[in-house]
Amino acid sequence: MPRGTPYTHLAMDAEIIATGTELLLGETLDTNSSYLATQLPFVGLQVKQVTLVDDNIENLAEVLERARNRSTFTFTIGGLGPTKDDITREAIARVLGESIFTDEGLLEELMAIFHRRDASMPPHNLKQAGLIPSAVGIPNRQGTAPGWWAERDGHIIVALPGPPRELHEMWEREIMPRIQKMGIGQVVLTRTLKTIGLSEALVDEMASPFLGGENPYTGIYAKPDGIHLRMIARAASQEEALDLVRPIEEKLREIFTTSIWGVDSESPQRVVGEMLTKRGMTLATMESCTGGLLASTITDVSGSSAYFKGGIVSYTNDLKEASGVDAALIQRHGAVSQQVAEAMAEAVRIRLKADFGIGITGVAGPDGLEDVQPGTVYIGVAGDGRRQSDLHRFPQNNRSLIKHRSVVSALLALRQLLESAA
Amino acid sequence: MPRGTPYTHLAMDAEIIATGTELLLGETLDTNSSYLATQLPFVGLQVKQVTLVDDNIENLAEVLERARNRSTFTFTIGGLGPTKDDITREAIARVLGESIFTDEGLLEELMAIFHRRDASMPPHNLKQAGLIPSAVGIPNRQGTAPGWWAERDGHIIVALPGPPRELHEMWEREIMPRIQKMGIGQVVLTRTLKTIGLSEALVDEMASPFLGGENPYTGIYAKPDGIHLRMIARAASQEEALDLVRPIEEKLREIFTTSIWGVDSESPQRVVGEMLTKRGMTLATMESCTGGLLASTITDVSGSSAYFKGGIVSYTNDLKEASGVDAALIQRHGAVSQQVAEAMAEAVRIRLKADFGIGITGVAGPDGLEDVQPGTVYIGVAGDGRRQSDLHRFPQNNRSLIKHRSVVSALLALRQLLESAA
Repeated sequence: MPRGTPYTHLAMDAEIIATGTELLLGETLDTNSSYLATQLPFVGLQVKQVTLVDDNIENLAEVLERARNRSTFTFTIGGLGPTKDDITREAIARVLGESIFTDEGLLEELMAIFHRRDASMPPHNLKQAGLIPSAVGIPNRQGTAPGWWAERDGHIIVALPGPPRELHEMWEREIMPRIQKMGIGQVVLTRTLKTIGLSEALVDEMASPFLGGENPYTGIYAKPDGIHLRMIARAASQEEALDLVRPIEEKLREIFTTSIWGVDSESPQRVVGEMLTKRGMTLATMESCTGGLLASTITDVSGSSAYFKGGIVSYTNDLKEASGVDAALIQRHGAVSQQVAEAMAEAVRIRLKADFGIGITGVAGPDGLEDVQPGTVYIGVAGDGRRQSDLHRFPQNNRSLIKHRSVVSALLALRQLLESAA
Repeated sequence: MPRGTPYTHLAMDAEIIATGTELLLGETLDTNSSYLATQLPFVGLQVKQVTLVDDNIENLAEVLERARNRSTFTFTIGGLGPTKDDITREAIARVLGESIFTDEGLLEELMAIFHRRDASMPPHNLKQAGLIPSAVGIPNRQGTAPGWWAERDGHIIVALPGPPRELHEMWEREIMPRIQKMGIGQVVLTRTLKTIGLSEALVDEMASPFLGGENPYTGIYAKPDGIHLRMIARAASQEEALDLVRPIEEKLREIFTTSIWGVDSESPQRVVGEMLTKRGMTLATMESCTGGLLASTITDVSGSSAYFKGGIVSYTNDLKEASGVDAALIQRHGAVSQQVAEAMAEAVRIRLKADFGIGITGVAGPDGLEDVQPGTVYIGVAGDGRRQSDLHRFPQNNRSLIKHRSVVSALLALRQLLESAA
């Protein structure tokens, strides 16, 4: 397909090739491919395969050749640096049977970058100004390595840099708009509604008239933060895809009402933070088995200092009592109990002069505690003149997973209290 | 190579194929391949390629076929479940030109699993008892899907389950020992010494007589928890590889002495926990900008309740003062100051009746606070009659990274105090 021909009305296949021996040693987790794979459906590209190869020109050329014969787009990630291990340009040139020349425009830009750094360009950086006849250089605002957009015989190879900051910037500012302008037919849109407090079977039953389907497709997914309902639509544009999803979303919202606590990438800590901010109210926490993870998760949200008063990590009964929990209550019901969870929530709310309090007490494991099984966690919330608490039994005997799930449950319990207080 | 032939004295090529449409959508980060890639060198296998493919039998068979022609081992991950999307067994059978039959032994084990769960086996789980003549079933202690070890014409395909817990267990308990027994020639051993308090340039200078080299190779790596010295040795056995590494390690330990805080996968929280346990001493924390992450990290270590008294997340000055920090000190030096960091460490140590205290105060960003730049963090430690503190300026404007680095620095600062108190 010659340059300029509109690519219309078909979802095109794409492949991703990430290079780097460190990826094959497992030393570096390949987050780049995953990033790019989430981006491609939005411009109408469907990822057929992801391959990680070492810094070996024969291997890379072989993988490139196969991808080129099979898909419309190939994205390479990495191997654009100045060292002898950086062989992506050479591999592309070899596959296309072209020779690399030094492009004067790229060289000028490269020298300008070093000039701005008050440094002279090391000679081995010269290769970063290389180009082949079928390719154009793509500016890199975050580093010295320009990308390549190489187009021949209906196949496009896009060479992107490996450092995530450079990759993200080049994708968002240069490559994504360029592909969008090509007007490739199909856009894939996903929309996720996140529910809490309902079992998978119950969500399945309630949503059954809308499950399945071809376009949009609606499915159910069990996640640590509750049961998700996800719609996937394919259409010629973002708007048309949204039009397909919207009526289903409205129906599902009518059915699930306040059981839906968030959409798409929203997190419980952000949702709770927004609710507190809107009401001008504040929060404090007292936690034992989660060991500070609840407070840390709340403060992962920037601006949380406006509503988060602070927390107490009460790993001992002494500290619970010193923080306002009645010693007799602990004596009577045990430290891991519904009564103590509620008392912790109420005590820290009062002690830290906050509107709402959360208390968590339980056993994260791996060992039990005084006849209490690991995974047993009580979560209490207090505020608006009320107290509530729930018992959770997390089946995993995995300390960090139990901590994480307890935190999500605690935030969603607070959300429920805030919701009903509204 | 027929079954039983010893595989001796050559590092064998291996490929990893991870299946799952969700991997290609970028919805699930592929941590499995990375896990397996770090494991394979220890049994003498060298990963040549990692491929992620969708749940499509044609695509998977094509990738399997290529891997089989090129490498000695192919590891597949995922696609062993009971649904119609689980097509790994069928793809392997197709590539080997064999038919799947129901294995009575596997069926019996499968039914026993459901029996233990007090459930009857759903009919579609029957396929998990499938086998081909060239394969043996590999027990799965964590789930219902047995693995496969399929050996023919000198190539071995190992089919592993996708859930990480199942994968890890099956690798460690079944597959790794089986490959070790084959006696493949070369073992790759890495040994990492983790230093703190020295710059990369200084470590480079101090270690320079030992850097580089062929076997073992010694290199320097800058990491969030300090500068690492890593040795990589190749030999016919684990013992011989250790013999290559040991003399270098001894020399490096002589040079770096107590600047080395840990080895290999040791974490600061575990090292500090062990030091406290050995001394029978206790710890308490007061943190602002890390928002509970310090306490949460300390309590990630199971058994930490023996030495961790608890923590205060003092997101407000009020709470700092109520916890024993002198209001005049905050007034005079500002909440983000060396004096307040030390006062927090000392106050929480006294308040929670612990032997040692850590105080963290700073700005995690993204915005500054009262003229203090984001990334500015003071860390104070107190105990054994002493107080120390350090100013850190973390360059990243990334909230969670600043929190994480502050916590690592705080734990290593405490380690230093404990080390000198010993």
